[in-house]
Amino acid sequence: MTTIAILGATGYTALELIKILLRHPNAEITALTSREDKRNIGLVHPALSGRLDLSLENLSAKEIANRAECVFSCLPHTASAKIVPELLHYGTNVIDLSADYRLDSVEVFETWYAEKHPDPKRLGNVPYGLPELFRDQIIGTNLIANPGCYPTSAILPLTPLIKTNLIEPEEIIIDSKSGVSGAGRTLKLSSLYAECNENIAPYGLGTHRHTPEIEQIITTASGKITKIIFTPHLTPMNRGILSTIYAKPLQQIVKNDTQNELLETLRHFYRDEPFVKIVEHLPSTKDVSGTNFVHITVRVVGNRIIIVSAIDNLIKGASGAAVQNFNLMFRYPETTALI
Amino acid sequence: MTTIAILGATGYTALELIKILLRHPNAEITALTSREDKRNIGLVHPALSGRLDLSLENLSAKEIANRAECVFSCLPHTASAKIVPELLHYGTNVIDLSADYRLDSVEVFETWYAEKHPDPKRLGNVPYGLPELFRDQIIGTNLIANPGCYPTSAILPLTPLIKTNLIEPEEIIIDSKSGVSGAGRTLKLSSLYAECNENIAPYGLGTHRHTPEIEQIITTASGKITKIIFTPHLTPMNRGILSTIYAKPLQQIVKNDTQNELLETLRHFYRDEPFVKIVEHLPSTKDVSGTNFVHITVRVVGNRIIIVSAIDNLIKGASGAAVQNFNLMFRYPETTALI
Amino acid sequence: MTTIAILGATGYTALELIKILLRHPNAEITALTSREDKRNIGLVHPALSGRLDLSLENLSAKEIANRAECVFSCLPHTASAKIVPELLHYGTNVIDLSADYRLDSVEVFETWYAEKHPDPKRLGNVPYGLPELFRDQIIGTNLIANPGCYPTSAILPLTPLIKTNLIEPEEIIIDSKSGVSGAGRTLKLSSLYAECNENIAPYGLGTHRHTPEIEQIITTASGKITKIIFTPHLTPMNRGILSTIYAKPLQQIVKNDTQNELLETLRHFYRDEPFVKIVEHLPSTKDVSGTNFVHITVRVVGNRIIIVSAIDNLIKGASGAAVQNFNLMFRYPETTALI
Amino acid sequence: MTTIAILGATGYTALELIKILLRHPNAEITALTSREDKRNIGLVHPALSGRLDLSLENLSAKEIANRAECVFSCLPHTASAKIVPELLHYGTNVIDLSADYRLDSVEVFETWYAEKHPDPKRLGNVPYGLPELFRDQIIGTNLIANPGCYPTSAILPLTPLIKTNLIEPEEIIIDSKSGVSGAGRTLKLSSLYAECNENIAPYGLGTHRHTPEIEQIITTASGKITKIIFTPHLTPMNRGILSTIYAKPLQQIVKNDTQNELLETLRHFYRDEPFVKIVEHLPSTKDVSGTNFVHITVRVVGNRIIIVSAIDNLIKGASGAAVQNFNLMFRYPETTALI
Repeated sequence: MTTIAILGATGYTALELIKILLRHPNAEITALTSREDKRNIGLVHPALSGRLDLSLENLSAKEIANRAECVFSCLPHTASAKIVPELLHYGTNVIDLSADYRLDSVEVFETWYAEKHPDPKRLGNVPYGLPELFRDQIIGTNLIANPGCYPTSAILPLTPLIKTNLIEPEEIIIDSKSGVSGAGRTLKLSSLYAECNENIAPYGLGTHRHTPEIEQIITTASGKITKIIFTPHLTPMNRGILSTIYAKPLQQIVKNDTQNELLETLRHFYRDEPFVKIVEHLPSTKDVSGTNFVHITVRVVGNRIIIVSAIDNLIKGASGAAVQNFNLMFRYPETTALI
Repeated sequence: MTTIAILGATGYTALELIKILLRHPNAEITALTSREDKRNIGLVHPALSGRLDLSLENLSAKEIANRAECVFSCLPHTASAKIVPELLHYGTNVIDLSADYRLDSVEVFETWYAEKHPDPKRLGNVPYGLPELFRDQIIGTNLIANPGCYPTSAILPLTPLIKTNLIEPEEIIIDSKSGVSGAGRTLKLSSLYAECNENIAPYGLGTHRHTPEIEQIITTASGKITKIIFTPHLTPMNRGILSTIYAKPLQQIVKNDTQNELLETLRHFYRDEPFVKIVEHLPSTKDVSGTNFVHITVRVVGNRIIIVSAIDNLIKGASGAAVQNFNLMFRYPETTALI
Repeated sequence: MTTIAILGATGYTALELIKILLRHPNAEITALTSREDKRNIGLVHPALSGRLDLSLENLSAKEIANRAECVFSCLPHTASAKIVPELLHYGTNVIDLSADYRLDSVEVFETWYAEKHPDPKRLGNVPYGLPELFRDQIIGTNLIANPGCYPTSAILPLTPLIKTNLIEPEEIIIDSKSGVSGAGRTLKLSSLYAECNENIAPYGLGTHRHTPEIEQIITTASGKITKIIFTPHLTPMNRGILSTIYAKPLQQIVKNDTQNELLETLRHFYRDEPFVKIVEHLPSTKDVSGTNFVHITVRVVGNRIIIVSAIDNLIKGASGAAVQNFNLMFRYPETTALI
Repeated sequence: MTTIAILGATGYTALELIKILLRHPNAEITALTSREDKRNIGLVHPALSGRLDLSLENLSAKEIANRAECVFSCLPHTASAKIVPELLHYGTNVIDLSADYRLDSVEVFETWYAEKHPDPKRLGNVPYGLPELFRDQIIGTNLIANPGCYPTSAILPLTPLIKTNLIEPEEIIIDSKSGVSGAGRTLKLSSLYAECNENIAPYGLGTHRHTPEIEQIITTASGKITKIIFTPHLTPMNRGILSTIYAKPLQQIVKNDTQNELLETLRHFYRDEPFVKIVEHLPSTKDVSGTNFVHITVRVVGNRIIIVSAIDNLIKGASGAAVQNFNLMFRYPETTALI
């Protein structure tokens, strides 16, 4: 049994995290934090009524460390990196769902997030929590940077095809469609029901902060500095990310052969992965909704390769991945509580 | 041509009003107000991009009256009644979409709205803007209390059946389901997409402010003080109100005969009304969406009468009714811009 | 480990059932049937891609019994009762998700379903699978009639209040709102996206087949033949049932006292039930979505009692309840795979 | 006044067409056809209850021509071209909403539609009904090929930029997102509410029949045979198409300057068009929902040009465009019934 604290427990990722952990035979939630809210968690998230009798508390790093062997931080960026060093100092393990430890470069962080990084010296030494790519680094660490939702949907299908030189890393366009829960539980006009429903719209063209995160991992895979085009869209649904990715082949296309080679490469790469499903059909977000699975397929169309991936942004894109990392960190079977 | 000002133009009812008035051959919008927002209306409501080149202004009653022969007030309750007396003083006509002039009794207003009424002496002398019931009072007035959305959906089907003694006024239960635009464009947790989507829930049981408004008109129709049970529900759609109304018959039920008599009574009552459709099938909100129509039917089930009505909460429940009232007030054909 | 066959595996309840059973440590799915479809289940339900490698088969009762100790029947009504007798003859246990064994009276069945019952002699001897009310009968049986979705949402809150003489059984009105998955995966105009979205509408007024099912259990609770008014509505969401129930008190109302007594009665009645949560706030379907929980509250409004309950129609209203029954039948902990 | 027949009046485009024509002061609907359905149109489309008292009829071309000066054909492809020659023979004008007369080449038609064309000799001589590009050809013709919904959303923003050599025609990727009404009112599994809701998915990769239609017009604009990549997605909303279009610049990018030049080029090209709005903000489908407007913007991101356009697929993408064409054909003001 591992004791667990969740920081910033009022949002949607925290709710999903708690639901998953309530099914986990080896996890015990012992603390939930919020700076201002003191209510019982069942009032903050009525879905938890009668299921978890804990109230939100404003706790110091020391108090948290006294209660929990593992901390999941659902704090906003920079707030997370302000408390993480102290938590690690007191011996707690941390899985950080914020963006604070995902980028290797302080400069890139400060450019895209327009804030000073509170813990710059750790950047570059924190495993990026995609077990399918970085499992070895995750096992045995005490701090994990849980990946962003869009990056997960793009990196998983792209990495094998870049590593095997099947696609040109320089010409990648990622057109992503996300459910509204990705915008969080903050009050803003663009998150109102009557603004989002019966509506699809792009946002953050050229400025979305998940861009450098994708570029960093793609750069690692390709071995050369790579820029991508990434266009997120707000889609009228609660959950799910669909990424439609346009790439150019590095070899001449022979339609069916190329398509089969691409699919076979993905299947081989992920042959032992419990959560990655390379499928023949075109993925749909509903098919992975509420699960930690990723569905991926590839098509050759004209002179392009089109890759399609689907995840649940709150599960494989956030809290499910966090529990998968937790399982690795604490040597529990990797799929515990996630099937 | 009538010049028009819209007060409180940043919300959803104002947007619908502007869209309808842009189709109106005899209406010219000359002023839009907001206390704080100064932007061009096309930035506030991108749906109006390039369609209406006016900026929001913070105008005094006198300035408004100088620009407009008719004012539509989309201000919140009490804010409206603070400016209306002055507008009338300067000779402008007013159609008030707030609740301020709907109730006849200051005491009832102050009990349900928990605020002092800024213009109590007018209460009881302002026509309730349901043309189907109060057309004579509307023509020739200079101030109209535009009805609430739920009341419209309940009063229109109930009034003829109460007036003809076909149903017992004392035993009425109104179970209403509204789209989320009814909650306005204000930032609140309960209006967030991820809170409303894939969700239906009741709210305001026994406390919704449309209750006394319905009771007032029903009391008028029945001739005796009448209390009703009214339960609104927030439904995952932008627009529409469906009211399912349970009543007891005053006469013995003979199933098909009673049902036919009820339908016939409604058809006769509304035979000349362009916007009221008594239908055989069960109404659906989508069938009246974007229109000023009301669909109504009746069924006899067991020992009960079940009445079902559907409106678009933003049109017949607000801005469409307001333009219908405007047409009557200014002697334009009643359906202008509304078909 | 118990081997399991699912009959009629192409629909939504079967999909939910499979997802739950894949999490169940003591269940092994060994057969999936369909009369015409022979595809791998991952093609029928892409959500199961790579998770269950079984193809649909057209199997005889004997073949099914050879493969499975427990059969979940997701067949349509009358199709189920045609095969169940033979399955029982071969020694298999059956949990029937159809309506075939829910009603005690052949006459009532044939009146409401307008078909001859294929297995009339068993009616009246099959436990109604609501463990919260009939657990003793469920343990030790070999055939369970899994309850309808609407009845579950109405019976659970009503039974304790009727049994304790707090409400008048004769004056009950149940206004229910269901997600569209309740209409099944059959092709019909009224289930099309563009017909259901942005729309709420009642259906089946006075004719819905869950009416006699509710009346039967309420009659048992009240000890006298009871008729209810039941109005279902199709709501634009995939999942969830919200029932708003209007009842008259049998004792004089003292507002807060009565409300507390009602809540306390429910809390006491369900104090040991893992899936029933008596809540203070007004229930929302989203809070029980994807779970086997029921949320219930009560309010006193005017001279009425208003009870509100929320369930997930596919889980507590169908497949979750079926697994709960399975757990009882095979003496596994009742909450296995359901938290 | 022009008399009008609508062929194939049971679907969604016909419903929208009727709604628009009921507002048109110069149009009188005199016939509605269906091969099998004989019901009153108010039963087929309850939204028309009490608004249009016509029944569906199975009429010959001659009978139609006797009743109507203008025919709108909402028939499926090939069905339309089977009756159009005869209608023209009898002197009726035709606006064809099917795909039958959009492509200039019989060979291309038969390749993509996999059927013989019933009226091949007319292909190449029928104006493509985008008034913004082909107004001169539309005025004075007796047959118009009303454009496809996706092509409208792509061609309008692309044509000016290709004609002015600002973008490379060879490298265009069109990632489009459509509401479900685009799939029509036909019964198919993929159009069911519970399949579409809370789901986004691509379909028809490399095979969608709007591809050659877009390529034909782009080829005309660029002056050389052009292939494009077009990926449609089914989005959980009733209406709307958003197209996110990726193109390469033909000149070196100077970020702000290039973006301004692109916007300015579009503004200039469409300066007199009442329905095309070049906007600064990122377009949203909700802002054009229920209207005949197109919202377009452009962004420079990295080394790419990203163009975003939004239309209502049923209005500017079908029935609104058809009425716009009707207005031109019969010399009514072009915006009649469309504001």
